[in-house]
Amino acid sequence: MSQAETAAAAPRRGRPGYDRDQVLAVAVKVFNEHGYDATSVADLTAALGLTKSALYHHFESKAAILEVALNDALDGLERVVDDAVAQHPLAADRLRSIVRGAVHVLTAKLPSVTLLLRVRGNGEVELAALRRRRAFDQRVTAIVAEAQREGLIRGDVDAAVATRLIFGMINSVVEWYRPGGPVDPDELGEDILRATLDGLQSR
Amino acid sequence: MSQAETAAAAPRRGRPGYDRDQVLAVAVKVFNEHGYDATSVADLTAALGLTKSALYHHFESKAAILEVALNDALDGLERVVDDAVAQHPLAADRLRSIVRGAVHVLTAKLPSVTLLLRVRGNGEVELAALRRRRAFDQRVTAIVAEAQREGLIRGDVDAAVATRLIFGMINSVVEWYRPGGPVDPDELGEDILRATLDGLQSR
Repeated sequence: MSQAETAAAAPRRGRPGYDRDQVLAVAVKVFNEHGYDATSVADLTAALGLTKSALYHHFESKAAILEVALNDALDGLERVVDDAVAQHPLAADRLRSIVRGAVHVLTAKLPSVTLLLRVRGNGEVELAALRRRRAFDQRVTAIVAEAQREGLIRGDVDAAVATRLIFGMINSVVEWYRPGGPVDPDELGEDILRATLDGLQSR
Repeated sequence: MSQAETAAAAPRRGRPGYDRDQVLAVAVKVFNEHGYDATSVADLTAALGLTKSALYHHFESKAAILEVALNDALDGLERVVDDAVAQHPLAADRLRSIVRGAVHVLTAKLPSVTLLLRVRGNGEVELAALRRRRAFDQRVTAIVAEAQREGLIRGDVDAAVATRLIFGMINSVVEWYRPGGPVDPDELGEDILRATLDGLQSR
């Protein structure tokens, strides 16, 4: 029996054992509910019903849990841009693919994306995540600007402002979207394309 | 000399006197920086350089300051809908007017709208503000649905989802808009109309 299994086999308060992903999921939930800064390691062990040593077997620190969660969200978002660039030669098609893909990542990884959107730059882990977010925004802005040069995206809106507005709409979904609720995540992606690129006005 | 002037004439740490609006502005800034719940009356008096009794001359409690700030934001947003309904017979025109007006309120009253958007329903003041926000959302949703019946807004997006998405984009502006910065607030309103109703795609 591995050390992890030993630890997980004897949780406090009779909770079932957790693997690393489950510890991560519970910790991210607690971070989102109470704020990362306001959450102590004791809060995490209480929520998990694990001893500190069992928690530290999975993650070396609270910051290490944050880092894994933020990287999970950022990896997903960056992969969307990588795939869009690999699959579509036209920037306008890349942009449609990025909008669809970002909505998919947000709805599929709602807790870690929610955590990412609340990062304000306290500490090294948050600063590194903000740098990756900025690089992501710059890549998308460059694609919007290219789509404007192609003539497929209107040129009378600044590319950086357009990118902020599109992602402002996408990111606002964390405020109300709930998995398993009445709004289908794929349909939501199409709605956001209609509400940004196509326009809500009838033609 | 009134009681307020007496209090304001003898601030601690040599700060200048404050009238009620200035106390409100400083308090809202502190709430936005540290969170309403995490801010104590002592934090407010320290930020203002006022004694507790001078602060209580202007507002009877911390919750009273929150209430005035939230009502200021909500009054502004509700007036936008009232004016749009009074001025435009067509729902589609009302919607354009609401988007422009809401962006104007957000940029002109950025601190109080920022505070409003962070309200989660802790306590009576926040619950009352959430009820007004919900009523506002329902009024706008009804206007979107009417514009769909007019045939001027596309019918293949649910009216409530469309309203959430449009206001998700508008509200996201609090994350990055700074008064006096490079983005003109009126132009921003037009950009958001282009990015939602007209569509960013070239025709």
